[in-house]
Amino acid sequence: MTRGITIALDGMGGDHGLETVIGGVEIATVRHPDVRFLIYGDEALMAPLLVKHPRVGAVSTIIHTDVAVAMDDKPSQALRKGRRTSSMWMTIDAVKEGQAQAAVSAGNTGALMAMATVILKTMPNVGRPAIAALWPTMRGESVVLDLGATIGPDAFQLVQFAVMGQAYARVLFGTPRPTVGLLNIGEEEIKGTEQVKDAAQMLRSIKLPFEFHGFVEGDDLGKGTVDVVVTDGYTGNIALKTAEGTVRQVLDYLRNAIKSSIMAQIGYFLAQGAFRALATKLDPRSSNGGVFLGLNGLVIKSHGGTDAIGFASAIDVAVDVASADLLHKISDDLSLLNGFDKNPSGASASDATVSNAEVPTS
Amino acid sequence: MTRGITIALDGMGGDHGLETVIGGVEIATVRHPDVRFLIYGDEALMAPLLVKHPRVGAVSTIIHTDVAVAMDDKPSQALRKGRRTSSMWMTIDAVKEGQAQAAVSAGNTGALMAMATVILKTMPNVGRPAIAALWPTMRGESVVLDLGATIGPDAFQLVQFAVMGQAYARVLFGTPRPTVGLLNIGEEEIKGTEQVKDAAQMLRSIKLPFEFHGFVEGDDLGKGTVDVVVTDGYTGNIALKTAEGTVRQVLDYLRNAIKSSIMAQIGYFLAQGAFRALATKLDPRSSNGGVFLGLNGLVIKSHGGTDAIGFASAIDVAVDVASADLLHKISDDLSLLNGFDKNPSGASASDATVSNAEVPTS
Repeated sequence: MTRGITIALDGMGGDHGLETVIGGVEIATVRHPDVRFLIYGDEALMAPLLVKHPRVGAVSTIIHTDVAVAMDDKPSQALRKGRRTSSMWMTIDAVKEGQAQAAVSAGNTGALMAMATVILKTMPNVGRPAIAALWPTMRGESVVLDLGATIGPDAFQLVQFAVMGQAYARVLFGTPRPTVGLLNIGEEEIKGTEQVKDAAQMLRSIKLPFEFHGFVEGDDLGKGTVDVVVTDGYTGNIALKTAEGTVRQVLDYLRNAIKSSIMAQIGYFLAQGAFRALATKLDPRSSNGGVFLGLNGLVIKSHGGTDAIGFASAIDVAVDVASADLLHKISDDLSLLNGFDKNPSGASASDATVSNAEVPTS
Repeated sequence: MTRGITIALDGMGGDHGLETVIGGVEIATVRHPDVRFLIYGDEALMAPLLVKHPRVGAVSTIIHTDVAVAMDDKPSQALRKGRRTSSMWMTIDAVKEGQAQAAVSAGNTGALMAMATVILKTMPNVGRPAIAALWPTMRGESVVLDLGATIGPDAFQLVQFAVMGQAYARVLFGTPRPTVGLLNIGEEEIKGTEQVKDAAQMLRSIKLPFEFHGFVEGDDLGKGTVDVVVTDGYTGNIALKTAEGTVRQVLDYLRNAIKSSIMAQIGYFLAQGAFRALATKLDPRSSNGGVFLGLNGLVIKSHGGTDAIGFASAIDVAVDVASADLLHKISDDLSLLNGFDKNPSGASASDATVSNAEVPTS
């Protein structure tokens, strides 16, 4: 159901600017013919590109601004100089004003998160937003969050991430009861940071519409042990980039190994279909698009360095979450946290029983 | 210079026990014919293995104990039931007593770290120990620490990790001034946890025998951007396991891609030399062996699930660090931290100038 869906696009974010955005929309028009776009950016720069891409013009409304948030602007700078007038601000504002159901920007993450939080505000029962993305696994895909929005969340914020992440997984994978794991350095209960241990205790004690699997480790990400992996933004970002770097490293080793002999090169030639399939499977562009969760509006962050193919993937994510009405699903599930005691191990543990909390009997 | 080196081995650690240890020593006798071994474990179980491996018997002294620390013992349990009598305790104690220059155990990490800390104590200027290991990179190898010993170190402890890690890199790679990076979620100074930001400030302000590169990100691990990557034990452990999992995932994809067509299988057959080289390069057994740094004695942790080939790699690490006298190099470098102000941004910042601290002029 993509009829009636409009996506707002920041035409001036990312390392490659408008060409990436317009090229991405061109691809998206084929995949989502019913979707309409609002593109915020410099009209003069856009005009020649729209001549080249008439299909984009046919489904898009261009809103002019020549104020851009720079890729190296600090969040505070971006808010100061880009308030109301920048393409990034206007893109997010379109979601707030109901002109679009989701916004996509390849602009700088810190600025985008700051602006999105200022404009859209956090949902009830959310302390801080999280960035969620799809992680390709041996079993398919998992939702992983937070990937860099919130450094040092407390235990209850990790619980909120779990609730938001599972709603995303339910919408995306159609699993009625997604499995959720907390990223840790061992499966035993005694391991890990206090936040992670306390969050696990909370997740065990409260009745929520998902299956809490317990702790998972770094290698469970690739295995796809659970549908949703929850962690703090610092660890999640490092894990994501470590995995991306490792993929490049293995492919680099593979290329060098193949170059090392004529026989291997012939073998490579014969197996090139398989290698192409591998490259497609590992292409970071196909899993581009991190969703900001916990705000009163849907904002999708595209990698800054991506191309049109990658930007089209971020648009896919926007269309998916908008047409599934993810926002309301998340806010419904978050309401289950109403009145939940945030300090079950603290001094007020004795009065920890609230409407939705339930001590498991097993 | 391995003459005169003796390595103490825990015969009862790991998932596969004595066979792995004796098999590992068999391999090590070829690589290090001058090295002698003390093996702690059950004599009755060892006897038949020594008949099978006469070369091991020729270079080893067996010290009997039938008390083993279990792989799932909590550190406190291990200390209670294994004090003095367990193979793990006796192995570490041999280092303390000067009978061996390094100890190797494949036993459980928490118990090993707890016992090693109790027996050997931390060095001056060390708050908590770290586990350092070699990380294969596109450029060669980097030292990465901490991989799981210390959860939530403060900024000054991260500085200590940097000092210890660079000493290890100097000894191992022979680089006179290793480059050191702090793992973070961006290269900008405003990003990351308070601990990481404060540690960066300290590392910039103090004169140390290495090059502080600044922040590095997760993908810099595989790239080999710096010789030493410093992080906390929680993040380091998750990054390591994420990378290991990603390697398995890519190889799994590769296998499936090749299985998908006859042509690819023929290609694989022709290129199998290259694939074998790749498999060897990515074999986790060849980088097995994490060194505990910051204690008054050298202890090497082998993966619990490794085999004889992997255990031999851990012995290699032990022989390397023992023959390079890593312990004294670390303690010399740590003395540069004498009197360093741990709160440069705190209230006492005005009197931060100490003997070895130097504010950079640029």
